[in-house]
Amino acid sequence: MPIQAISWSPSGAVRIIDQRALPEAEITRDLESAESVAEAIRQLQVRGAPLIGIAAAMGLVTGMGEHRTAARADFFTRLKSLAEMLSASRPTAVNLRWALDRMLRVAEATAGEGADLWERLRVEATAIWEEDRAMCRKIGEHGLTILTDGANVLTHCNTGALATGGIGTALAPIYLAHEQGRKIHVYVDETRPLLQGSRLTMWELGRAGIPCTLITDASAAALMRQAKVDIVLVGADRICANGDFANKIGTYGLAVLARHHGVPFYCAAPWSTVDVALADGDLIPIEQRSPAEVTVMAGRPIAPEGVEALNPAFDVTPARYVTGFVTDRGIVQPPFSGEPLQ
Amino acid sequence: MPIQAISWSPSGAVRIIDQRALPEAEITRDLESAESVAEAIRQLQVRGAPLIGIAAAMGLVTGMGEHRTAARADFFTRLKSLAEMLSASRPTAVNLRWALDRMLRVAEATAGEGADLWERLRVEATAIWEEDRAMCRKIGEHGLTILTDGANVLTHCNTGALATGGIGTALAPIYLAHEQGRKIHVYVDETRPLLQGSRLTMWELGRAGIPCTLITDASAAALMRQAKVDIVLVGADRICANGDFANKIGTYGLAVLARHHGVPFYCAAPWSTVDVALADGDLIPIEQRSPAEVTVMAGRPIAPEGVEALNPAFDVTPARYVTGFVTDRGIVQPPFSGEPLQ
Repeated sequence: MPIQAISWSPSGAVRIIDQRALPEAEITRDLESAESVAEAIRQLQVRGAPLIGIAAAMGLVTGMGEHRTAARADFFTRLKSLAEMLSASRPTAVNLRWALDRMLRVAEATAGEGADLWERLRVEATAIWEEDRAMCRKIGEHGLTILTDGANVLTHCNTGALATGGIGTALAPIYLAHEQGRKIHVYVDETRPLLQGSRLTMWELGRAGIPCTLITDASAAALMRQAKVDIVLVGADRICANGDFANKIGTYGLAVLARHHGVPFYCAAPWSTVDVALADGDLIPIEQRSPAEVTVMAGRPIAPEGVEALNPAFDVTPARYVTGFVTDRGIVQPPFSGEPLQ
Repeated sequence: MPIQAISWSPSGAVRIIDQRALPEAEITRDLESAESVAEAIRQLQVRGAPLIGIAAAMGLVTGMGEHRTAARADFFTRLKSLAEMLSASRPTAVNLRWALDRMLRVAEATAGEGADLWERLRVEATAIWEEDRAMCRKIGEHGLTILTDGANVLTHCNTGALATGGIGTALAPIYLAHEQGRKIHVYVDETRPLLQGSRLTMWELGRAGIPCTLITDASAAALMRQAKVDIVLVGADRICANGDFANKIGTYGLAVLARHHGVPFYCAAPWSTVDVALADGDLIPIEQRSPAEVTVMAGRPIAPEGVEALNPAFDVTPARYVTGFVTDRGIVQPPFSGEPLQ
């Protein structure tokens, strides 16, 4: 069984697994304030687009706990300030903004003072989490059709139970196929600089007993040339109306390589990742993270002091490279429209 | 000025810079025996195809020092045994075998007993080193034609002064272009798992005052899509008669990406890297290194204990992806024939 990455603690704090400590240590943290949730998101103790949306919604509830007795107007002043602060913790993932907007809308539609609003927010945050669990399962069920028995899947970063409230996005079909007894083997890109593949994906797949092999990011091309990869399955942090999508740096290169070698390339994500307000990938803001993530490893310098380094967290893959988008609404093709962000 | 990676110590030992310690510490080691040279090659204290050829030839001289008084037959018995041991220290690079074969041939063509043979070997090892310095310079001069003022070059691994007896192979044109006052900027792939790009290339380019920016291996594709890369310039560990070549894992992926984005892709190597005995790349033996290089970093585990990991040191790039081979004989195209390994 996949692990559970987030939950309420008995005292109402946001309980997380500290993903920065994995795989060396399995540390559970109870985050008692919205500030500590934002800090955990910034530090990538909690990461994965769906999971940070859930964490932000739950963090808003925890943070408003001490304002439960406030009058309506004061409650809203504080609520909006905390939502703003949480929203700024990671700029690229659309789920974060989406979850916070949903919480604000629900509060505005609720009558009463602080106590009523807070109770409603708590129900809504739990609903966001439970809907995510259900969404993961649906992504998994739809994705089952593309995973034949004996398939060698290549994946990038971590898009599993540690990235969501449930069994993951790109890993969800793998979990379900394994559950059904299909033989699936996963090649896991280590995913520099933060090594979510080696640290997190290898950890959760290993726990679930799914055969997997770790590779460096630059090994994927040679594996494809040797016809050892049957399908590439990645997640997404934001999908535009035209199907261009942002995902962990390295995803675009995999898409080009998959196309070149005739390997199907699928992007798996909840429908909430679609941002119909963005026409195409050129409009996606790309988070530039600290060069120190590239130049320092485990506290030890791995490059000369003071060198220049680029560290974009994401890249954009144009829609034309994508065989299909595996979502909770089925396997779909762009363009995307309508009002997905309900 | 580029640094000098190898030399004779005053006492006749093989003096190297310990490349495993860079960039944290600049440690010079005097290797007093053939065994310690072989161990330094195995541990990658000395690496780079041309440099390990030179190191092996010099190591043979150092190792035979104590047998200088031996009779001819005994000298040869020991010489062949040491050459065999040195040859086994890295399996993929052709230069290693080439340098040792040349040393054996020269000894066989020399009359006399141990003392005469040893003196001749010492002269030959120094000649191999000096020829390599001259070859690097020639590669640089021929490569100047492909580096226009203002060029942004992408390179992989380390193919510079630390990989050769001189100013490098793929970095040689960059050093000369910089020397001539052309504005050159280099994007350096960090080159997992052993980080020769971040640890070595960034170090030696920085020392020479050449503008350079470190990137993770998986960032190259996004840079090419943004038209930030004008040319890709890599080295080679072995080039086949048909032009297929082996180089550091990740090279093949760069070649595919360069082709896809219309970026010229050049391979720079001394002519001695051409192995006309190998018809094509499928025949190149690929060294599989320890999975621990992928799963452990700076002594700290970065993947769960006991996971499976692949760690091929090299991949093969088919000739059709290569715009040109920059050699000491000029910029050439396959097929290659003749007797280059004299």
